Amino acid sequence: MAERAIPATLRVAVIGTGRMGADHVRRIQSVISGARVSAVVDVDAERAKAVAARVDGCTAYTDPVVALAAADVDAVLVASPGPAHEAALLAAFAHDLPVLCEKPLTPDAASALRVLEAEQALGHRRVQVGFMRRYDAEYVKLKALLETGQLGRPLMLHNRHRNVASPPFFTSSMLISDSVAHEVDATRWLLGHEITAVTVLRPTPSVNAPDALLDPQFVVLETDGGALSDVEIFVNCGFGYQVQAEVVCERGTARVGDGHGLVTHMAGRWGGTIAQDFTERFADAYDREIQAWVDATRRGEVTGPSTWDGYAAAAVCEAGVRALEEGGRAEVALVERPALYG
Amino acid sequence: MAERAIPATLRVAVIGTGRMGADHVRRIQSVISGARVSAVVDVDAERAKAVAARVDGCTAYTDPVVALAAADVDAVLVASPGPAHEAALLAAFAHDLPVLCEKPLTPDAASALRVLEAEQALGHRRVQVGFMRRYDAEYVKLKALLETGQLGRPLMLHNRHRNVASPPFFTSSMLISDSVAHEVDATRWLLGHEITAVTVLRPTPSVNAPDALLDPQFVVLETDGGALSDVEIFVNCGFGYQVQAEVVCERGTARVGDGHGLVTHMAGRWGGTIAQDFTERFADAYDREIQAWVDATRRGEVTGPSTWDGYAAAAVCEAGVRALEEGGRAEVALVERPALYG
Amino acid sequence: MAERAIPATLRVAVIGTGRMGADHVRRIQSVISGARVSAVVDVDAERAKAVAARVDGCTAYTDPVVALAAADVDAVLVASPGPAHEAALLAAFAHDLPVLCEKPLTPDAASALRVLEAEQALGHRRVQVGFMRRYDAEYVKLKALLETGQLGRPLMLHNRHRNVASPPFFTSSMLISDSVAHEVDATRWLLGHEITAVTVLRPTPSVNAPDALLDPQFVVLETDGGALSDVEIFVNCGFGYQVQAEVVCERGTARVGDGHGLVTHMAGRWGGTIAQDFTERFADAYDREIQAWVDATRRGEVTGPSTWDGYAAAAVCEAGVRALEEGGRAEVALVERPALYG
Amino acid sequence: MAERAIPATLRVAVIGTGRMGADHVRRIQSVISGARVSAVVDVDAERAKAVAARVDGCTAYTDPVVALAAADVDAVLVASPGPAHEAALLAAFAHDLPVLCEKPLTPDAASALRVLEAEQALGHRRVQVGFMRRYDAEYVKLKALLETGQLGRPLMLHNRHRNVASPPFFTSSMLISDSVAHEVDATRWLLGHEITAVTVLRPTPSVNAPDALLDPQFVVLETDGGALSDVEIFVNCGFGYQVQAEVVCERGTARVGDGHGLVTHMAGRWGGTIAQDFTERFADAYDREIQAWVDATRRGEVTGPSTWDGYAAAAVCEAGVRALEEGGRAEVALVERPALYG
Repeated sequence: MAERAIPATLRVAVIGTGRMGADHVRRIQSVISGARVSAVVDVDAERAKAVAARVDGCTAYTDPVVALAAADVDAVLVASPGPAHEAALLAAFAHDLPVLCEKPLTPDAASALRVLEAEQALGHRRVQVGFMRRYDAEYVKLKALLETGQLGRPLMLHNRHRNVASPPFFTSSMLISDSVAHEVDATRWLLGHEITAVTVLRPTPSVNAPDALLDPQFVVLETDGGALSDVEIFVNCGFGYQVQAEVVCERGTARVGDGHGLVTHMAGRWGGTIAQDFTERFADAYDREIQAWVDATRRGEVTGPSTWDGYAAAAVCEAGVRALEEGGRAEVALVERPALYG
Repeated sequence: MAERAIPATLRVAVIGTGRMGADHVRRIQSVISGARVSAVVDVDAERAKAVAARVDGCTAYTDPVVALAAADVDAVLVASPGPAHEAALLAAFAHDLPVLCEKPLTPDAASALRVLEAEQALGHRRVQVGFMRRYDAEYVKLKALLETGQLGRPLMLHNRHRNVASPPFFTSSMLISDSVAHEVDATRWLLGHEITAVTVLRPTPSVNAPDALLDPQFVVLETDGGALSDVEIFVNCGFGYQVQAEVVCERGTARVGDGHGLVTHMAGRWGGTIAQDFTERFADAYDREIQAWVDATRRGEVTGPSTWDGYAAAAVCEAGVRALEEGGRAEVALVERPALYG
Repeated sequence: MAERAIPATLRVAVIGTGRMGADHVRRIQSVISGARVSAVVDVDAERAKAVAARVDGCTAYTDPVVALAAADVDAVLVASPGPAHEAALLAAFAHDLPVLCEKPLTPDAASALRVLEAEQALGHRRVQVGFMRRYDAEYVKLKALLETGQLGRPLMLHNRHRNVASPPFFTSSMLISDSVAHEVDATRWLLGHEITAVTVLRPTPSVNAPDALLDPQFVVLETDGGALSDVEIFVNCGFGYQVQAEVVCERGTARVGDGHGLVTHMAGRWGGTIAQDFTERFADAYDREIQAWVDATRRGEVTGPSTWDGYAAAAVCEAGVRALEEGGRAEVALVERPALYG
Repeated sequence: MAERAIPATLRVAVIGTGRMGADHVRRIQSVISGARVSAVVDVDAERAKAVAARVDGCTAYTDPVVALAAADVDAVLVASPGPAHEAALLAAFAHDLPVLCEKPLTPDAASALRVLEAEQALGHRRVQVGFMRRYDAEYVKLKALLETGQLGRPLMLHNRHRNVASPPFFTSSMLISDSVAHEVDATRWLLGHEITAVTVLRPTPSVNAPDALLDPQFVVLETDGGALSDVEIFVNCGFGYQVQAEVVCERGTARVGDGHGLVTHMAGRWGGTIAQDFTERFADAYDREIQAWVDATRRGEVTGPSTWDGYAAAAVCEAGVRALEEGGRAEVALVERPALYG
């Protein structure tokens, strides 16, 4: 980043002002340290203006290309819908701007590969992909524990991913590409392996799944380290939002996500409440993720999940959707890992 | 027990055929090994006959003295109301019969002392007192852990004792003499200390306590080993039956009684059910207690809580009731421990 | 059982006096109610004599056929090695004796089918198969919860089955036929479904697995009710014996097997100990199983897992071993369910 | 605060640059939003300079009076030793500056009362006292649950407060005034009651307590709402830092502080690690506390624990030390609550 001096307070353009983007604007302005929002971009001009009006010194745009050319933009946070990511990323690359790109990097492996190649052409990393489980305190402890080697080599990873209910637009393949995408990244990150094949099993759908939605699904990921990672994905479980992981190693197991903070005893039952959505379960993880990105960017560094991670996740999810649709086991094909992501 | 040969199957007279006595008849006949019920005794002749009619070879009596003189009685289980215990125990001593006496040994220290002296006059132990926590699997593990010395010396014991609701006849002093009596024994047994003083604190009663019942109470027991044992007794807690103990030692703590067997996730909550009464919570402990008594008796031995333990509990509870009624701290006076209970 | 009057105390012949058989002899003599051991049978005559010598009125035999012809045998407990079960069962059928047969019913589906046909020829059920998870207090609660319908229809069942270390003679296919056999029965019983296909996945074996042993394995069972049941079987996990099950239903989940009785805090860690083998974890389940069999037999009834359950488990395990050896998914073929097991 | 306009970024003077003060400087600069450190003050000039050198636009001072007179100070964070608090607070009042004052407000009730009177003379609240448990996520949930009324009226509160080891300068009375001070505030806040009497019980000290330190202690607080709050304070427990609270209400109980995030199974044991000090256990609570103070201050408001709360805690702790030293029960005398803190 020799070309641009980063000021004490990082000026961020946020692309996309839907639920996620608006929440990131609030986070940057009111929670974390060292950054402010100088531009917001949305194809919906009214929505962009409404968000900008609540922030001192923030300009509203409808076109990312125009926004990123502005003098008061040091970095970009992409929170628009997945299909718009590629264009936003390429615009950021044109100005050599650091980017935090919400997951997915792009909706499919081919477009992810184009982004990968564009970043390589820049000659240095610019992108952090928004796989925020890597910033959840419990997942961080689990990763640290695995790295100590106390438990020995990981053999299996059991994941649970449950939502209260799916939004109306959700399709059977989105259980893989939108939801299991997180476990794809968590598996790669926790185990340090690439995923080589995906099998998707389909129990009889729940009576609470909307018409024709194959929910739940049970996904088995195989890795090049010889490990298995299974994922229960159940997006209409009805009772709460749960993300749990249990890693089984040669000398022991470790589990996160039980979420047992406040325990009550009442009316013949003991227990506690279950978070109802990801903003409750992962609020702190999002804060840490954005703070880590701001801090690294101000130091002139790029850390966290890379474009390669985004590409690999896209390729695995693509194989997963194929396995879902065709039945059985689908192999994952990745290009060779470029030296930039070594 | 040189005087009597014990047959392969111990023939037991059960005195008292109320809820507790009838349950022990069922236990001896249908659950445990090595014993059968040959006599039942109740002042209510119809009740005694009804119970006897369900058991092969069982005679109904109304007078314990007559029952214990029968040829087919090898041992006695006393489950009549507390005020009837002294007479039953002395009748058993007259025939030198082994006795399992439900708690309390007797309702007050003076009568307990008379039983203690009568057993000493026999020259050998005959009584096991029914403090069944000593037979609960978790309490047994806790005691075993303390005895390893891993945790160091015990400094404090925190006890919780909660009932859904108290029976109509329950009085404020019965929270001490009937309920806390269990924690008095558990404290003495787990710590291996005698209790030297009792303080009873009285928060404003729960709106769910019947008129004039001081419920909950908070009891602090001091021991001759310099430890403290506090007891929350709450007999109208409304939500379940809970008996929990946490011992705090010089190098760590240990806790029993959480009761977390089956865990559910449903309707925004995780957790499980709470037992609703002691027959559910301590069913296995009762089975083990009676089996242990039968086994020891068939070997010609007396094990388990002794008459001394029954007397000490009576004396501590008596001081507790005094502390409750007069406020403040009441000291416990015990006679010197006879050599028989060394 | 019109032909034979059952005496007050059931006289049991125990076939096989190895670890399991000897433990059942102890259980019948010293723990449960209503039965005694009148005969023991072992091809090792010295071992049979040694066990018989410790029991009043017990005769030692080497041949089950001779033993079961004795006048003082009312019922049979088969605890010999699996390959000897068929002959023992047929001998029991010859005298129309009730049998508790340790799992497996027989080692393969063909022999199990012969037993099934022989029992049908008798015209009434005589066999209870020793799937003792059905008698574990937590599994019983889980089954009862599922039957209330509160959680809705079961969609998935996640099972964990871990042993500290495998015995020297253990082979890769025994992880299925000997260990997963329990989860096969638990799946059938909890869900009330038959299993239609088995897939076995093989992660890279643990460094602690003996040479050539494929350990752990990950097994996915499909059922005719459209549910999935996955099993982690790991027989050299090193840290303890764990059997856990989590059922995922349309409206919630339920989990058993955490085993969190005594909780300690010490040296920077909280937690508890893990059972080291099945005799510790399932001691109470075995007691309840044998007591239930004795009680039912004395009432002239046959309850518990049937010959059909034993046959179905054998057929599923056979398919599982095929899936393990050939890779991929193996379908399960069952004969039509006879009316006797309706 | 009509007199002063608060700029977009709050300029904070931090008084005291020891462990706590330095950590707050880091927090304001690098974690939270909307504030920066413009001045640091320490009697140790070198230490103040070293801290100031790491912060852009920060001046080092040795005298709080001089520092608070500077034009670029909008608010004050007092993190100096307790005996220096009164002077710092009065200096802040002289400039009508908002203050976050670390606990204790002052070391005794008499000086706390002087501060209370000085703030009343200002005519409006300026002080937030640093009782940070009110910002811990679990305590916040517990408070919210109590306020729903679901559990009914609180009857008892059981608190555990354990440290690995006490610092060399710790005295027996500091277990009350420094440690139990937190539970004094938590009791007042959670129950909404004032504390009326304190009893301190002293078990035989742990072998790991330094010479003459009375550790552990068991403290019973009585409230004007008729509730009891007991506190186990054990500052040399050896195994970890634990802060737990269980409130017992008329219809149920609720507990926080178990801290069961990451669960491992290894070497015959299940469980997890225990935090080793308060910076680990309460890191997020400190972040939320300072952010809440900055946010309220920028809005021109004063929220959080008040000077009255600081005074009441000082008075209760003073009674507690008296109870410790004299034995028995000490009553708490509070002045009438001024209307300003209504």
